[in-house]
Amino acid sequence: MPTPNIEYPNFSFDIQFQSKSSKARLGVLNTPHGSVQTPAFIFCATKAAIKGLSPHQMKAANTQFVLSNTYHLMLNPGSKLIQKMGGIHKFMGWEGPILTDSGGFQVFSLGHGSVACEIKGKRLSGGRRKTLLNITEEGAEFKSYLDGSTHMLSPEKSIQTQRELGTDFVVVFDECTPFHVEKSYTAMSMRRSHRWEERSITEFNKHHDGTQALYGIVQGGVYEDLRREATDFVNSQPFFAHAVGGSLGADKAQMYDVVSYTMSLLNPERPVHLLGIGGTRDIFEGVKNGVDTFDCVHPTRLARHGGALIRADQGLETKKEHINLKNAQFKEDAAPIDETCGCETCQTYSRSYLHYLFKAKELLALQAITIHNVFYMNRLLEAVRNAIKEDTLEEERKKWVPE
Amino acid sequence: MPTPNIEYPNFSFDIQFQSKSSKARLGVLNTPHGSVQTPAFIFCATKAAIKGLSPHQMKAANTQFVLSNTYHLMLNPGSKLIQKMGGIHKFMGWEGPILTDSGGFQVFSLGHGSVACEIKGKRLSGGRRKTLLNITEEGAEFKSYLDGSTHMLSPEKSIQTQRELGTDFVVVFDECTPFHVEKSYTAMSMRRSHRWEERSITEFNKHHDGTQALYGIVQGGVYEDLRREATDFVNSQPFFAHAVGGSLGADKAQMYDVVSYTMSLLNPERPVHLLGIGGTRDIFEGVKNGVDTFDCVHPTRLARHGGALIRADQGLETKKEHINLKNAQFKEDAAPIDETCGCETCQTYSRSYLHYLFKAKELLALQAITIHNVFYMNRLLEAVRNAIKEDTLEEERKKWVPE
Repeated sequence: MPTPNIEYPNFSFDIQFQSKSSKARLGVLNTPHGSVQTPAFIFCATKAAIKGLSPHQMKAANTQFVLSNTYHLMLNPGSKLIQKMGGIHKFMGWEGPILTDSGGFQVFSLGHGSVACEIKGKRLSGGRRKTLLNITEEGAEFKSYLDGSTHMLSPEKSIQTQRELGTDFVVVFDECTPFHVEKSYTAMSMRRSHRWEERSITEFNKHHDGTQALYGIVQGGVYEDLRREATDFVNSQPFFAHAVGGSLGADKAQMYDVVSYTMSLLNPERPVHLLGIGGTRDIFEGVKNGVDTFDCVHPTRLARHGGALIRADQGLETKKEHINLKNAQFKEDAAPIDETCGCETCQTYSRSYLHYLFKAKELLALQAITIHNVFYMNRLLEAVRNAIKEDTLEEERKKWVPE
Repeated sequence: MPTPNIEYPNFSFDIQFQSKSSKARLGVLNTPHGSVQTPAFIFCATKAAIKGLSPHQMKAANTQFVLSNTYHLMLNPGSKLIQKMGGIHKFMGWEGPILTDSGGFQVFSLGHGSVACEIKGKRLSGGRRKTLLNITEEGAEFKSYLDGSTHMLSPEKSIQTQRELGTDFVVVFDECTPFHVEKSYTAMSMRRSHRWEERSITEFNKHHDGTQALYGIVQGGVYEDLRREATDFVNSQPFFAHAVGGSLGADKAQMYDVVSYTMSLLNPERPVHLLGIGGTRDIFEGVKNGVDTFDCVHPTRLARHGGALIRADQGLETKKEHINLKNAQFKEDAAPIDETCGCETCQTYSRSYLHYLFKAKELLALQAITIHNVFYMNRLLEAVRNAIKEDTLEEERKKWVPE
């Protein structure tokens, strides 16, 4: 089947400034649900809700963009229910842009072990039940984590589901190839993913009405020749944007190499998303290579465990990018999390109070730290955008990232 | 020791309108932390936090007044820590008026069984560990629910603790006498409470600097002669305000009789709080008898179990004052909880979404319903205030209370 030509009249990506000293750029991503200043962070509203925060609180913390997960929503409450309720924006009360992944990442990561686990050098623990049953040319068969029922996720099914959800950005269905496989498996899997991406495009185009735009995914693992084959493929397809996915390596150094190499080959006119990566250091690295958007559960998940993101220049004796408010050292600390932060939490509460809330198991602890971490990420990306403009990315990095 | 004369230069209660058809009145309660339009509802921030809502969200839902519990805060994090952090207002970020109870209610209710249990005809279950060790003339000895350590709560200790907390309204230490005891115990306990109240006044007056005002409590159980003795006592003491406490009977009819009788005897110039009672029907009954403020954990606790308060005239086939959003009937219900409600939750989410959030165990469910229930109570009290002015309390009651 010949590749269709797809136009996206209601979407555009305007590159407004290109750095001279790196591939970093400033852009505006225009969607039917408003515009996003890039580089930007996309927050994970996995099950069509940010854990513990309302859309109003997300907005108040300067959030531009959220993503939700096809895998979770197809199982509960089902995309048809969300469609019946007027689509995902109305359902969850978020009026800004929403991206959904294809569902592939969850299906395969529950089967193989996740990307995050790889970067941290972990393997999927034996106790974690594998739910991936079978991968065929047709798609992936898996068991629901909710009730054990069997489901098939195929390119067609994923695109149909994302259409029913009504998100702004739809991602093609692919296999997220794990790190701990042979190169031959990575190559075979990537080529099958390319066939799945073509089927995704065909399915997307069948009902294309201008309300959604399509992301292609770049696979290829840690192998330069495969990444080149994958970037050649996505560049040739009628995608609105690209997402860099798959295994990025065993450690941060390898990840930065893979990202840098891949970014050098992608069509620079299209926006690029780096899937599932969002550490402060990673963001500076990604931006320098031209990445426009990032997502990661880290800021919101960390918050629920008492971790508050903090700038390196805040003078704490820590090599980490956060402080743990559960630590006894904060019991009588009258300072806010970060003296320089304008978020509601830093304007309202002391570390002492937040420490107490965690110890007392008060629900408010979760929302308070989450607000701070969301605000922090949006503040970080705003600082990054300013630094791109001023050509001061390296100086800015030193303020945020511990040495 | 002669009763001291205590003045409250920074507090006042201005009765602005007295109904001709009942004892209902409109007032303004002025405090160093702002004014409260009465009748008003006081929300339970038991451990110096509303469960799941920030002070900003409480304010946005029109909240005027919160209360916190001396018993919980003296055990964790301790009143001295809160004092060191600048007092409870600064600690929890709530700038409006705060009342603390004396701690007596928790000490005794954990020993005897709670008022709420009595009204519902329940007894304290055998499985609930009793923590009250001993009651003497000195005070009550109890075990901490946190670590089993032994504590003595006396009138002096309670007042000192509340001073360290820095709340606006301090409540005298008394025994909350249970229902299932002889009249002779109720009388003995009440008279001991009066001696404790006198010691509370003496302790309060030692350090009185105008920043706090004192509530006296009326005990006496369901007995008219004892309630008369108790009201004579509190009327004669230099309290700023009164709170009606103790056993109010075995059912709602008896409770309304006890409240009505007690209210008829209290000094009408002082504000009156009805302790721990806050059902919609109870509020209309209390207001008609001149009650100025109410508190109850019900609206916020109900929310955390999926119960959304709803007006009787909203046409649901229910005899209850709420709907349970966990019920399957709401799965595809695109309407908000209440079409007539202006709260953030009703303006943002459908019943379908809230049902889904509960089923998916998403944290956001708790804050969303809590916001609605807080807004509902504040809206109810605003409607009550308007109805007092217009002399339409009975018509207003029919809109809110199921027949």
